[in-house]
Amino acid sequence: MNERSYAITPRRQEDYPQWYQEVVKAADLAQNAPVRGCMVIKPWGYGIWENIQKELDVRFKATGHKNAYFPLLIPLRFLEKEAKHVEGFAKECAVVTHARLEVNEHGRLVPADPLEEPLIVRPTSETIIGEMFSLWVQSYRDLPILINQWANVVRWELRPRLFLRTAEFLWQEGHTVHATQAEAQQHARKMLDVYTDFCRNFLALPVIPGRKPPTERFPGADDTLTIEAMMQDRKALQAGTSHFLGQHFSKASNIQFLDAQGQQQYAWGTSWGMTTRLIGALVMTHADDDGMVLPPRIAPAQVVILPIIPKAADAPAVMEACQALKLRLEALSYAGRPLGVELDARDLRSGPKTWEWIKKGIPIRIEIGPKDLEAGVVSLYRRDQEPKARQTLSTDALVGTLLDLLDAMQAGLLEKAQALRDTHTVEIDDLAALYAFFSSDTQIHGGFAAIHWNGDPAHWDRLAQDLKVSPRCFPFDRSYEPGKCIFTGEFSAERMIVARAY
Amino acid sequence: MNERSYAITPRRQEDYPQWYQEVVKAADLAQNAPVRGCMVIKPWGYGIWENIQKELDVRFKATGHKNAYFPLLIPLRFLEKEAKHVEGFAKECAVVTHARLEVNEHGRLVPADPLEEPLIVRPTSETIIGEMFSLWVQSYRDLPILINQWANVVRWELRPRLFLRTAEFLWQEGHTVHATQAEAQQHARKMLDVYTDFCRNFLALPVIPGRKPPTERFPGADDTLTIEAMMQDRKALQAGTSHFLGQHFSKASNIQFLDAQGQQQYAWGTSWGMTTRLIGALVMTHADDDGMVLPPRIAPAQVVILPIIPKAADAPAVMEACQALKLRLEALSYAGRPLGVELDARDLRSGPKTWEWIKKGIPIRIEIGPKDLEAGVVSLYRRDQEPKARQTLSTDALVGTLLDLLDAMQAGLLEKAQALRDTHTVEIDDLAALYAFFSSDTQIHGGFAAIHWNGDPAHWDRLAQDLKVSPRCFPFDRSYEPGKCIFTGEFSAERMIVARAY
Repeated sequence: MNERSYAITPRRQEDYPQWYQEVVKAADLAQNAPVRGCMVIKPWGYGIWENIQKELDVRFKATGHKNAYFPLLIPLRFLEKEAKHVEGFAKECAVVTHARLEVNEHGRLVPADPLEEPLIVRPTSETIIGEMFSLWVQSYRDLPILINQWANVVRWELRPRLFLRTAEFLWQEGHTVHATQAEAQQHARKMLDVYTDFCRNFLALPVIPGRKPPTERFPGADDTLTIEAMMQDRKALQAGTSHFLGQHFSKASNIQFLDAQGQQQYAWGTSWGMTTRLIGALVMTHADDDGMVLPPRIAPAQVVILPIIPKAADAPAVMEACQALKLRLEALSYAGRPLGVELDARDLRSGPKTWEWIKKGIPIRIEIGPKDLEAGVVSLYRRDQEPKARQTLSTDALVGTLLDLLDAMQAGLLEKAQALRDTHTVEIDDLAALYAFFSSDTQIHGGFAAIHWNGDPAHWDRLAQDLKVSPRCFPFDRSYEPGKCIFTGEFSAERMIVARAY
Repeated sequence: MNERSYAITPRRQEDYPQWYQEVVKAADLAQNAPVRGCMVIKPWGYGIWENIQKELDVRFKATGHKNAYFPLLIPLRFLEKEAKHVEGFAKECAVVTHARLEVNEHGRLVPADPLEEPLIVRPTSETIIGEMFSLWVQSYRDLPILINQWANVVRWELRPRLFLRTAEFLWQEGHTVHATQAEAQQHARKMLDVYTDFCRNFLALPVIPGRKPPTERFPGADDTLTIEAMMQDRKALQAGTSHFLGQHFSKASNIQFLDAQGQQQYAWGTSWGMTTRLIGALVMTHADDDGMVLPPRIAPAQVVILPIIPKAADAPAVMEACQALKLRLEALSYAGRPLGVELDARDLRSGPKTWEWIKKGIPIRIEIGPKDLEAGVVSLYRRDQEPKARQTLSTDALVGTLLDLLDAMQAGLLEKAQALRDTHTVEIDDLAALYAFFSSDTQIHGGFAAIHWNGDPAHWDRLAQDLKVSPRCFPFDRSYEPGKCIFTGEFSAERMIVARAY
């Protein structure tokens, strides 16, 4: 069989990082903004984010959270309150220093009215939300407080990359305070479980939930839980984190309450977040050499109908059939919402139009032309099959089987991603084998190595330098046995996953 | 009849501005943030905003718009491109000048790494979106582009006030470009009609749609359309605006397209926005001396169930009945969504608990106690009636009539607001009468005066100074006859509404 040509150049195997950029562009998801490190999220990419928001929001509300909104701008003194927190974020803060612009002697617009105290654009909101919680909490009866915020944050990035690392990104940040340590710890875990389930069942990302080692914790957290996903180049991507904050921010912001025994106590906190980075994870997990491949449940639309009109005289009948089918399909309910159906009636040739939708990754394409009308059928193409693999079926058969087909496609994408992950996740107990696993080839990244380790961070400097790997997590998966540290031979209670990472 | 006491001090008639602040606080909608001019939107207030978002979003999508996201930070040079625009916004721009923090010799955190070009925090996004449109538009086939963004913006405010004027606020901003002037003008009007309909039918705000005089236009617009609402103190509040931008931003950003005849043309633009200010408008239109009064369609929840438990032994039966009722009510659909039902099972005395919900403005309170259980009834209280006005009815009767009751309450609030507006909207043709209408009493603001005027802005300096009024709009309402300018006696084709305003 001759190898066909593909819509994306380069292909994955040729240059994975460049392939990623090309898919994001070809799928019309986002583009670099004319502002350093920032992106414009285009309608098709934002449609994915809207679905992520809707689905997560339902899950947050079902677990007792309410949404609220806190200021974008945070006084410097708030950041100073928690030492590790400021250390973690000082290097990437955008700082507002002036409140007005004026025209200078050269006719140029320049900042004026310096602020008494500079403000930072929030990189995260623990400090400002902690300050508010200290006003809202008096008694144990006020606890827990379970809040979520949908917002933009800014973290100055030196090497920005669309969705994966951008100076500004969109996210949700959950912030909670509890009366007891155990309740806060359980809550951090509960929200990680919500993330795990959402990624698996909605985004078709078979993430590995686990605990970060101390060196990888969020600045100011006592414990950071994470979900780690394997991309098609076998690198790891941290898809979400949930932090048990202990009492650090409660002590920094004075969040105290009177317990049932009349004693003043500091509250126990959690915070957790997921970001527009998830869209990058979707691309790097599911896309192929023809562009994006969208899991049906997250797609902004599941179906596109493409009228095929070879002669102008065919137009009325074909368009009527397309409109009628659109209405029938939109009456279906998929993943708790009306099925998303696009009818692409633009006056363009059908070849380029078809390829636009392939590159966008819409799960199902339906073509209707004069011959289909005569035969009483439609042509169906699945994004998870070859571009020309056509099925012909009656409209009734389409309507009757479409939802099952979407479910099967969704399940297929998860299986495929899980197979890749499982194939490239290996237990390694020998340092030479670990070096061999992460070969020096910059296109092939080994995968996830589950190793034993004595917990001493010193070993990591060498591994990080030699292999460019980092500790990802101690997985919650209890199938791993205790063993011996790969560096020292000392006892180790659990395996940790290491990998190259985004 | 003895006058009862009220939950809010002062009452509206005593000190309206202070009453407003107290209602916002008592209803737990928002509070001032420890950041100058900024607010924290608390869950009950944010729940209103979420409903506003959901409803507007449906209407924007039904009129062909897609959501997208553009950067928060805008280079100074973008703002410079449109002369009137920069003049309008330069005085209220937060400016980011540094990208890092460092600890100085005194151990204090200070800004470091000055940016080559300062960035402003977006006060609105015409300039950055215009820049992107210039990349997206090549041919007439690419038009129209219909985009909406949900975002935060920052405009430095010298006299901030919760919801009404805050340094940061949340909003939606629609941005469109079209091939013809007529299409863009019609689109600006179409979106104002969407706003008008939404305010009237969803927020129970009987707004007056109209056109701003030239002096009151958005900086850079050729025409600004507005909806103006009358508050209970008879001042005007601008609830939303829609701008026909002409070709100003297209020329500034070089948004050109090849038309069907092969000629390069500049596109025609619109922009339009509504903000969290609407929540302030809801308070000032519907709240009373006991706190917030929420139109049922916008309320975060329509019903609260309050268990009455005089003795601990009653608790199981009462709670079971409350839970069962909650499930039954939640199965109802109201305004296109499941009915919102709160069950307040907190361990607090029922008096304070009841008053919390009155102050929050929830439309319906249901009490269930042991005596109700015995009699097979529940007690119902409406927020639009006296706090103690109780109706007793069976659960079946409640479930059967609740939706009609909510519709009646929604209609009643609109009628009441409209009656106030109509009573205090008068045609005035005599300058002395105009001065009398806007008396010097600072608590009573006359209302809306519909006057004739020759269009010369010079007259306004005097009126603004003497009466603190401003031109609000030329209403689209065509019932007004032509007449003579109130200042000069010259011919005037249409009346303009003037009022004191927020």
